[in-house]
Amino acid sequence: MVQTQSEINQKNSSAVSVEMRKEHAEQIEKALQAVQGHDVQNIFFVACGGSMASLSSGDYFVSRELSLPTATYTSNEFIHRSPKILGDKSLVVLRSHSGTTPETVEAASFAKERGALTVAITMDLESPLAKAAEYIIHYNYKDGSNAIDGELGMYYTFIFKLLNQLEPNQKFERVVEQLKTIQSLIEKNVEKFSIQADAFGKKNKREESIYTMASGAYYSHAYSFTSCLLMEMLWIHSNAIHAGEYFHGPFEITDDNVPFLVVMGEGSSRPLDQRALDFVTKFSDKVEVVDVQDFDYGQTDEDLREFFGPLLAGPVMRLYADGLAEHTGHPLSVRRYMWKMEY
Amino acid sequence: MVQTQSEINQKNSSAVSVEMRKEHAEQIEKALQAVQGHDVQNIFFVACGGSMASLSSGDYFVSRELSLPTATYTSNEFIHRSPKILGDKSLVVLRSHSGTTPETVEAASFAKERGALTVAITMDLESPLAKAAEYIIHYNYKDGSNAIDGELGMYYTFIFKLLNQLEPNQKFERVVEQLKTIQSLIEKNVEKFSIQADAFGKKNKREESIYTMASGAYYSHAYSFTSCLLMEMLWIHSNAIHAGEYFHGPFEITDDNVPFLVVMGEGSSRPLDQRALDFVTKFSDKVEVVDVQDFDYGQTDEDLREFFGPLLAGPVMRLYADGLAEHTGHPLSVRRYMWKMEY
Repeated sequence: MVQTQSEINQKNSSAVSVEMRKEHAEQIEKALQAVQGHDVQNIFFVACGGSMASLSSGDYFVSRELSLPTATYTSNEFIHRSPKILGDKSLVVLRSHSGTTPETVEAASFAKERGALTVAITMDLESPLAKAAEYIIHYNYKDGSNAIDGELGMYYTFIFKLLNQLEPNQKFERVVEQLKTIQSLIEKNVEKFSIQADAFGKKNKREESIYTMASGAYYSHAYSFTSCLLMEMLWIHSNAIHAGEYFHGPFEITDDNVPFLVVMGEGSSRPLDQRALDFVTKFSDKVEVVDVQDFDYGQTDEDLREFFGPLLAGPVMRLYADGLAEHTGHPLSVRRYMWKMEY
Repeated sequence: MVQTQSEINQKNSSAVSVEMRKEHAEQIEKALQAVQGHDVQNIFFVACGGSMASLSSGDYFVSRELSLPTATYTSNEFIHRSPKILGDKSLVVLRSHSGTTPETVEAASFAKERGALTVAITMDLESPLAKAAEYIIHYNYKDGSNAIDGELGMYYTFIFKLLNQLEPNQKFERVVEQLKTIQSLIEKNVEKFSIQADAFGKKNKREESIYTMASGAYYSHAYSFTSCLLMEMLWIHSNAIHAGEYFHGPFEITDDNVPFLVVMGEGSSRPLDQRALDFVTKFSDKVEVVDVQDFDYGQTDEDLREFFGPLLAGPVMRLYADGLAEHTGHPLSVRRYMWKMEY
């Protein structure tokens, strides 16, 4: 098949590599310089709900790639548990989309008082979180700019530069370089999965309960889909089951009519997911699979896919919630309690 | 009121302090001597399902009391993630009731290969797990012996002796000493809560879904109640919601007819639980509370209650599952898949 010039242009442009804006790159460099001067012996990732889930991909990569202890905490547990190793050898990465989540703002102050180095990730430079933390990584949100300057581009660039600084490895440098194509990668995958995500919504529109299941770097995607998309935005009962834990209790709930959304990961945890999927499809007639190996990775190096899969899973899974919203007639913006009262 | 001699005897016997059996105490000492010689820089707690939940009280106490990093993993995630800091400076505590859980046996071998010190907790000295790990802490199970030789007595004694060895503190010594009364403490609390647990079962016998909620040291109790008691043994849908996370997604699922079982903890995380309880009772008519402050702590020192609460919560919460079993007519021993097929 002969391609027209416009088709060739489109294909090339879809692999186009876009540099991060200068002020964004400088924020990341400042935070990394602070890490350089800080003798970091342990890392904490601290946030609430979907923000915690987003940060925990960082925790996952650190645990696999660095000889440093790392932990993820929901902000209020972090403050009340008050881990004893938290101190002047700690790096604490916090995140709140609006920068206003009170528990996370308090967690930043708490960590700073303990002498930790604090880095806040938020879309609002003027927010309380941005003011409470020492260093800020600010991302653009729905302003039409390239995804390299958005939440995924900024966070992943920061994490992989951090990994490279703490234990240098050329693969981390390649991740940072190739992250510059994420806008087109996201667009490709959103296009690729939109039809099956819509069909999922149609098929499941009358379900009152949908379990999610995943492991490894994808467990946090199951968690945020369960907590933020199904329970919060769609009022559908759910539980994010770890694929390894499935066989140690939860699998007994499986039955013909019990719906599951299973994320089949890319990378080292895939065998866990496969084992859970093999079982659940035998006994439930309502299993939907999001297979990260089916993602379009564009020009991404083969050995870096395990780092790009978790990044792309977010926008893809969002489509499945859009599908449910469309077919249940329940917009994702509807709330019973949030924004309507103090709590 | 004048007490009869038999009443006085009964009261005294209920506070009786029983020494651990010699062979059990020796197992713990051997493991601790190995720790002494090992330069432990980090601790991992590794098991599956209810065993993982049981171990995670150790993780909680270590994180609060020691300047050492600690993490809890489900066995298969541990193996596949392969945390980079796992090595010859690691202590890995593993647990399987029967000692046969394949993932946990494999995790013990995996940790040993990486040079870690491995300690297995099991009821079967001859089990594959006992053979795979370097050190064994064996507990008695339903043989009529005192609880100090059972799973709670053995594990808590090990953990608090470990804490005391790594960062000596007289309060840990007092915990170990007072653990010798746990048989009577458990009996007292089982008696105290049996009526309300039965009433819970009666009230909720037709519920298809019950959420659990807790935080801090009690989150693992919510998790095992959800995974092992509700989903596995009773086939009731559930999700263990962290009380701090409740407001960041899950709370939108709350409605008049949505049942919740909330554990109100003792100790530093109680304010989180209180905030969640205040909200959930406003919008759901079906909230049951297990309040750890209502436990009977007998002669336990006031400042040690936060260590005994998580220990007593297990036997107390089990009563709530017994109540459901009784009134649903679904014995806790029934399974669809476990024991019936390979998986």
